[in-house]
Amino acid sequence: MAFSFKLEAQDRTTAARAGRFTTRHGEVLTPAFMPVGTVGSVKTLTPDELRAAGADILLANTYHLYLRPGVETVRRMGGLHRFMGWPGAILTDSGGFQVMSLSDLRKVTDQGVEFRSHLDGSRHLLAPEDAIRIQDGLGTDIAMSLDELVRMPAVASVVREAVDRTVAWAGRGFEERERLRGEGGGAMALFGIVQGGTDPAERARCFAGLSRHGFDGWALGGLWVGEGRSLGLEMVEHDCAMFPADRPRYLMGVGHPVDLIEAVARGVDMFDCVLPTRNARRGTVFISTGRLVVKNAAYATDQRPLDPECDCYTCTRFTRGYLRHLFAAGELLGMRLASLHAVHQMVSLARAARGAVVEGRYAAFRAAFLEKFRSRATLTPAADGH
Amino acid sequence: MAFSFKLEAQDRTTAARAGRFTTRHGEVLTPAFMPVGTVGSVKTLTPDELRAAGADILLANTYHLYLRPGVETVRRMGGLHRFMGWPGAILTDSGGFQVMSLSDLRKVTDQGVEFRSHLDGSRHLLAPEDAIRIQDGLGTDIAMSLDELVRMPAVASVVREAVDRTVAWAGRGFEERERLRGEGGGAMALFGIVQGGTDPAERARCFAGLSRHGFDGWALGGLWVGEGRSLGLEMVEHDCAMFPADRPRYLMGVGHPVDLIEAVARGVDMFDCVLPTRNARRGTVFISTGRLVVKNAAYATDQRPLDPECDCYTCTRFTRGYLRHLFAAGELLGMRLASLHAVHQMVSLARAARGAVVEGRYAAFRAAFLEKFRSRATLTPAADGH
Repeated sequence: MAFSFKLEAQDRTTAARAGRFTTRHGEVLTPAFMPVGTVGSVKTLTPDELRAAGADILLANTYHLYLRPGVETVRRMGGLHRFMGWPGAILTDSGGFQVMSLSDLRKVTDQGVEFRSHLDGSRHLLAPEDAIRIQDGLGTDIAMSLDELVRMPAVASVVREAVDRTVAWAGRGFEERERLRGEGGGAMALFGIVQGGTDPAERARCFAGLSRHGFDGWALGGLWVGEGRSLGLEMVEHDCAMFPADRPRYLMGVGHPVDLIEAVARGVDMFDCVLPTRNARRGTVFISTGRLVVKNAAYATDQRPLDPECDCYTCTRFTRGYLRHLFAAGELLGMRLASLHAVHQMVSLARAARGAVVEGRYAAFRAAFLEKFRSRATLTPAADGH
Repeated sequence: MAFSFKLEAQDRTTAARAGRFTTRHGEVLTPAFMPVGTVGSVKTLTPDELRAAGADILLANTYHLYLRPGVETVRRMGGLHRFMGWPGAILTDSGGFQVMSLSDLRKVTDQGVEFRSHLDGSRHLLAPEDAIRIQDGLGTDIAMSLDELVRMPAVASVVREAVDRTVAWAGRGFEERERLRGEGGGAMALFGIVQGGTDPAERARCFAGLSRHGFDGWALGGLWVGEGRSLGLEMVEHDCAMFPADRPRYLMGVGHPVDLIEAVARGVDMFDCVLPTRNARRGTVFISTGRLVVKNAAYATDQRPLDPECDCYTCTRFTRGYLRHLFAAGELLGMRLASLHAVHQMVSLARAARGAVVEGRYAAFRAAFLEKFRSRATLTPAADGH
């Protein structure tokens, strides 16, 4: 098959790993941060900019693309890679998360999820088999199984039922991919998703059920939904301890720099999150020394780049003062330049983490990162513009 | 002085000219189309993209920059060129046009224009001397004289009064630049603006009054405000016939491809217009064969680029189908890619016109351009996606 994962290094004193996997669209080095291209574009950015920022894999949202422009349009345009002009790898989500968060009239049954489009109110049924066929139709490199999420906090019986359904749906999705492969399709990798909220026993039970199938990788689902960082990281540690070493692990929806660094330390290989780019479009970016609200008036004559240590296009060419002006004036270029930095920052952070693992110094790397990130150095606006 | 214009070629059968002028920020080849960077950014685009599109001069709006971020901020940031990261030439307008079109409570007196900011309602007086000092403070390469515009149609006496005031203000502005030069500033070029609406006699009277000063170039004002293309072009022909050959001529606010080609044929050297980029942000672009409304559903699976003959980044990398999808989904990348094509298209058109003049074949170039532009070829959506 087109997908293979190779574990290249393990840190000595933490559970951090370095690996790489190959897809039909190139290699992906892990740990990896995947910028989110919701509807077939990482908002404001071109594929070339994503490449220049170091990205080798993107995430695209199945729910959005299924509704618009539709799978048939993407297929006629040569698949999602050609459609959006992205030569690297693509991971698609199953659509389930967005059905839950965006659509109206959701109804979950054993069959699947019934919902109304948030765009035009049309009715749809997303069964686990559909989720696989849609992702295959988009031409993804890595597909995710349809899972059931529960809103937390939830009583134990609700969590248990969602785990049962997640296991059953994942099995049906896996069989659907086998069927597609029998027809010459389904070349994509398929990941299983562990649910079970913050109950380690349920998460273990979920994993045990899913393990009956030969999933190509493992996702940690249902976390970072309000349970708090320390409990979330406990679950990460728990799940990674039960996962096989020879498959990539993907912590869904996590994108804060500190979370990434801590989750890598516990054995996670892949991340995605819209927050870095969403915040950037609103005038806030992470830099190596913390969180910079560049739209603030205090930066109006600050001649430093967003991050004096960053070598992204934005930081090598523009000042905080100019960015601040663009945000104050509502100029799209501001969103764009901040987004570019944000993607570069997260992709580079994951890449730096990889380097530290390879060199067997992840614990020191993590400590240095955290100290610096919490220092808030360079965040204070310059007194006289310098 | 830093500004000098050299007429390099004149067409044999039309009044078309090819020239170049030097500024403190490089050479500008004419005919030239100046993309508009209203508040210090050509919306959605970076300076590097503007360079790659062939632009060597931009227009920036004094009114906007005066109100936000303010001249003092721009000055502290090293001037407008450094502030926005643009190494090429900049022409600024006087601010008068935008005062008239955007601000509240405008009151024109001999002293200047009193107005309220459209941003915060604050009161300001823009006298002709202020317009010069502000533009000098921004660090522009070419400044425009403050003029009085009248809303058309207008009775003769109103037009006459506006011409009188335009002449008087231009003189005061010119003296102000002389004064600044006496202090070591005012290095910028300064253009006079001919008003007079569609009355050739008034336009001639305006020019005669302005000619008492040594303006570095001549702008054609008060045109393309609803009088119709043929009458507008008559005025262009009239004005260019009275202008000296050794100064550049600038037709303000004109940016339709046909208008540019026709005005070049009558002796115009410089153009600016927000329409190409504004239309682009709304999903409509000019291509070599007409006007393409790429946001239309008919292009959803059209695999051709916006313009099959264009070599801009957008046209070499993306399909109409993808652009259509981006507009349908409200993605900023669509605005950006269309804007990039729009700037490239207009800058390239002016550059092609220059080449035709240099080679003494402007009449044939114009005929071929018009025939093709009116052909609407390639605008019909592809039947099956190709």
